[in-house]
Amino acid sequence: MFKKILIANRGEIARRIMATCREMGIRTVAVYSEADCQAPHVYEADEAYPIGPAPAGESYLRIEAIIAAARQAGAEAIHPGYGFLSENPAFAEACHEAGLVFIGPPASAMRLMGSKIAARQVAQQVGVPTVPGYDGPQQDPQRLLQEAERIGVPLLIKAAAGGGGKGMRVVRSLEDFPAQLEGAQREALAAFGDGTVFLERLLEQPRHIEFQILADAYGQVVHLGERECSIQRRHQKIVEESPSPALTAALRTRMGEAAVRIARAAGYVNAGTLEFLLDRDQHFYFLEMNTRLQVEHPITELVMGLDLVRQQILIAAGEPLRLRQEELVARGHALEMRLYAEDPEQQFLPSTGKVFRFFAPQRPGVRIDSGVESGSEVSQFYDPMLAKLITYGEDRAASIARMRTLLEELAVFGVKTNSALLHAITENAAFREGLTFTSFLEEQGLLAPGALREQEALPSVLGAAALAEVLNEERGERNPWRRLGPWRLGGTGQLLRYLYEGEEHQVCLERLPGSGGSWRIEIDGGEPEEVLPQLAPDGALCLQRGARRERVQFFRLSGETQVMLRGRLYRLLRPLPPAIESSLRGRGQRGGQSLTAPMAGTIVKVQVSEGEPVRQRQVLVILSAMKMEHVIAAPYDGVVRRIYYREGDVVQGGAVVVEVEMGQSEATLAPTSQE
Amino acid sequence: MFKKILIANRGEIARRIMATCREMGIRTVAVYSEADCQAPHVYEADEAYPIGPAPAGESYLRIEAIIAAARQAGAEAIHPGYGFLSENPAFAEACHEAGLVFIGPPASAMRLMGSKIAARQVAQQVGVPTVPGYDGPQQDPQRLLQEAERIGVPLLIKAAAGGGGKGMRVVRSLEDFPAQLEGAQREALAAFGDGTVFLERLLEQPRHIEFQILADAYGQVVHLGERECSIQRRHQKIVEESPSPALTAALRTRMGEAAVRIARAAGYVNAGTLEFLLDRDQHFYFLEMNTRLQVEHPITELVMGLDLVRQQILIAAGEPLRLRQEELVARGHALEMRLYAEDPEQQFLPSTGKVFRFFAPQRPGVRIDSGVESGSEVSQFYDPMLAKLITYGEDRAASIARMRTLLEELAVFGVKTNSALLHAITENAAFREGLTFTSFLEEQGLLAPGALREQEALPSVLGAAALAEVLNEERGERNPWRRLGPWRLGGTGQLLRYLYEGEEHQVCLERLPGSGGSWRIEIDGGEPEEVLPQLAPDGALCLQRGARRERVQFFRLSGETQVMLRGRLYRLLRPLPPAIESSLRGRGQRGGQSLTAPMAGTIVKVQVSEGEPVRQRQVLVILSAMKMEHVIAAPYDGVVRRIYYREGDVVQGGAVVVEVEMGQSEATLAPTSQE
Repeated sequence: MFKKILIANRGEIARRIMATCREMGIRTVAVYSEADCQAPHVYEADEAYPIGPAPAGESYLRIEAIIAAARQAGAEAIHPGYGFLSENPAFAEACHEAGLVFIGPPASAMRLMGSKIAARQVAQQVGVPTVPGYDGPQQDPQRLLQEAERIGVPLLIKAAAGGGGKGMRVVRSLEDFPAQLEGAQREALAAFGDGTVFLERLLEQPRHIEFQILADAYGQVVHLGERECSIQRRHQKIVEESPSPALTAALRTRMGEAAVRIARAAGYVNAGTLEFLLDRDQHFYFLEMNTRLQVEHPITELVMGLDLVRQQILIAAGEPLRLRQEELVARGHALEMRLYAEDPEQQFLPSTGKVFRFFAPQRPGVRIDSGVESGSEVSQFYDPMLAKLITYGEDRAASIARMRTLLEELAVFGVKTNSALLHAITENAAFREGLTFTSFLEEQGLLAPGALREQEALPSVLGAAALAEVLNEERGERNPWRRLGPWRLGGTGQLLRYLYEGEEHQVCLERLPGSGGSWRIEIDGGEPEEVLPQLAPDGALCLQRGARRERVQFFRLSGETQVMLRGRLYRLLRPLPPAIESSLRGRGQRGGQSLTAPMAGTIVKVQVSEGEPVRQRQVLVILSAMKMEHVIAAPYDGVVRRIYYREGDVVQGGAVVVEVEMGQSEATLAPTSQE
Repeated sequence: MFKKILIANRGEIARRIMATCREMGIRTVAVYSEADCQAPHVYEADEAYPIGPAPAGESYLRIEAIIAAARQAGAEAIHPGYGFLSENPAFAEACHEAGLVFIGPPASAMRLMGSKIAARQVAQQVGVPTVPGYDGPQQDPQRLLQEAERIGVPLLIKAAAGGGGKGMRVVRSLEDFPAQLEGAQREALAAFGDGTVFLERLLEQPRHIEFQILADAYGQVVHLGERECSIQRRHQKIVEESPSPALTAALRTRMGEAAVRIARAAGYVNAGTLEFLLDRDQHFYFLEMNTRLQVEHPITELVMGLDLVRQQILIAAGEPLRLRQEELVARGHALEMRLYAEDPEQQFLPSTGKVFRFFAPQRPGVRIDSGVESGSEVSQFYDPMLAKLITYGEDRAASIARMRTLLEELAVFGVKTNSALLHAITENAAFREGLTFTSFLEEQGLLAPGALREQEALPSVLGAAALAEVLNEERGERNPWRRLGPWRLGGTGQLLRYLYEGEEHQVCLERLPGSGGSWRIEIDGGEPEEVLPQLAPDGALCLQRGARRERVQFFRLSGETQVMLRGRLYRLLRPLPPAIESSLRGRGQRGGQSLTAPMAGTIVKVQVSEGEPVRQRQVLVILSAMKMEHVIAAPYDGVVRRIYYREGDVVQGGAVVVEVEMGQSEATLAPTSQE
């Protein structure tokens, strides 16, 4: 067995591979880019070597740097993980030439199955159906049109060298074919340097079903059942499960045998995945092969009771497979959901920055494969997947229920995530029924703007945020809100104001004497409620409302409080940033005043003009900093004298942004004076 | 299905039951004693009700208070967990009378199987062997001696009503029988109010093997295979595994069928466990039945892919079992180790106090069922089990390896734990070979004082502690050591002193300019070493020594730094507590000085007498506070003028304990002046 393995990857997969190595008594070598020098996978390795600057092309894709690190460390083998160099035959060859074992298939099998056209030919040779189409060498538009006529619409034009949807077009009418073909060829040439395309029938309501196989160096091949990965957004898998709700035992056997036949014909060794489409009528078609460990391998591990990384290492070390096909029966049901740093409310834009807090509970049947922890940086350079949330249950309903409760306990602060989308999927009736087609997200309307809003929870969120701040204040902890100065009303009441999605909300709190710590809470002038709050040792806030208890995760930033409730993140801005109120107290109540930026950032919105009368607490300027918005508001009724920046300008923290002169005029009292 | 369940328990098992309830859409009701008002199980429940003061007899054992809470909450069922009222038939009856479903067996079956004598008779009636013995009503010493002669030595005298080793005696020679019998009867009467004993053959090198069964209300009974729980300390299980390394498939079938026969004969319903002894010759003997969920149920869940709490709830709700015996085949291997708050180096005395930090990594195949989290209090009132560490692997070696690496990453600060013992077990050759007899810990010498010491790691530990402090100081975080004032030597070097187990050690640190953050480190005047330290985002310290990286968990307390390395906790005391050095700087260098207690505590050792000459940094008094030792040392060479307290006295923080007058005499320089 190997004594030392280099892991040519980062993030959760590097950590996951290292965990198995450690258990096998194998020392681990990490490589890292400049952006990752503080990353978890570096801290957890036995050795770590820098391989270049942040962009993957200058670090994780540099074959010679990785081989050099392996040589320096004295590693005997390299595990490529997924992505990066994992499906690059040149890397496998370079390892071999350097006397290192590549933990993956032989370069020849990788090269063969890496070409979609060649892979489909292999499948056809062993009698496995592929989607009706044309993948021949002829690229003449006229010839391709003839083939399109033969295949019939709807059909797909796909780049032969492609992936990720680039160079892919849907043709629903043959009249559109020539124009779409031209576009696809152009896009493929630009993206991959190769304009070759192929055509295939577009299946209606298809499911994406893939089979995991393991093959040893002695010709033994077994399959480990299927994974269904139909729920995707722009060809990016989001939800994976095993077994698929669509497969019968007989179909599983037929598809598994097909997968084994293809792998065998390709001369495949190590772990690999055969992807199929399954149509409404239970016909399956081979799509392509992934010649590496998949992101979603943990669900197979859970239903099979195996460690696929361990199996990969054993195979690479020359051990024969000890698994027998007839013993490989899935048990229970496993579900994986990918937690991405992206904002579902903003077209799923990636969200980067520091993860202030990452909390996922440890529960029976829950596995978290995470690339981050509290304090990690999410950079723009790599895949935005933060973690894989994985649950196992006795049956499909049980693993979904487990995932739903996991998502309700999860807390991620600092970057936005798709957790609200994932939670909505667990609650979706079609998902629960197993109607998981590749069009699922669109058909269920889950990608539409506003689909994930939960406005009815807002009063709970506002109350929790306000109570969390008051209790932390009382506990005497370092609290950014402290600098705000008194927000006490006359008497015992306290008033806190928040901006949520541009609208101001008021929370009125009053401690009830002799109630054992209860508070009277009134949101936006609504019906008052009595609440007993407690801060849990883990930092969560527990709210007792009558008999009902609610657990809320929150995080306080300068100028903003974030609350997570049932998988949804709410960002509550304070209308008055600290700098204003403190300077307000420092000066008299008359005369002009300079309002400063609470921190360095970009001016995203200037809501007023010079000379315009404004009312107290009116928002004047919105600043974006650390991916969050902060507002500068008027400290009193008055008139805007100067505005020093324009939209798009970058300001330093403390810079004077606006000057407002105090003084009421009739105009300032008119509602029309507000934008 | 139930809509709301009350969990009449606390700690990890209450949390674990609530997790399944939540997943099943069932609302959870917690009950808690005064000591537990901040406990995790209270925060995680949907509702929570106080049931009395800290002692279990006044809270968790109060049937009427628990029933009242269930009524108030509108719960339909009660899950008793394990311990407390879980095997109390009166509680099951009280639930029934109150119209609540008791999630467990009928009171009649519980009562029958709760009597060891009756349970053995049930077993004998269905042809299951019991350990040769006498469990008849005759308690006359002469008659019992006759029975002892029949059974033969070695034999055990056991209290019929007993448990936990009380009223139990080993007789190796019949001559000793009368005296041992008298002692056992006396002890049984005192402990249980019932002097009835029974006799049984003492088996040599036995293993403790138990079978999990599930029985529904319609007469269906299945077994879920065995758990081996042989490794015990004073009849307290520490290590459990499934499957047992000792069972063949044929023996498993025979024992499982025996377990099912007994459960059926007892009219048992719900989850239960049949305990057996297995002797060297593969003969098994029924011991007793546990009529509840066991602590170690998770290992069965992992190898069977089931959720036993879910099964319990389904059965209690009247669902028929959907499991078929022929489908219940264990897969892989699961191991559980119990993490106790106790000190293996101090005769396993329980350790109470605040858990400053509890960190267990989330890894594939690792499950942590924990009753505590960072910030939890461990009180003297309840079982000292903090958490169950559970690993699953493809085979026994894999789950043991996983446990070993888990223990090396685990960090618990604030209370002492048995983690070093658990780690030593994972590394023990006999354990790895499966030689797990009930005498394992004694035979392997793992309970002997000093057995768990790892002195060779001390230099690593000292270096890590010193670097952690320097780096935290530089990072500008709140640092209790700050108040110590300058511990810088002349030049760039820094000297830190620690007391470890009464011996002083010196760490000399020097930052190496232009080395990218490396330090030169010299321990106790040994060979200097170059180390590159980094603080990981999760607070761990990562040390690069040449190519090798080491990950160390540490925690800084006032006057003490704790380091965890490979499952072992090292407590390093600072010879000079803060109060001394700061007062030293405040005063001149001449004249007498009052040395004060750094915090409230108990004087455990006075090392000097009045009038005795002492040398600088000589330890004068040792104080115990918050379960840790702190020292008061001489700030300079001088003479002890007054000692205000004696050993055993309690002092307040800041109280003057010793006065030392500065001034050297010939005597103070002589080594003999030290105690």
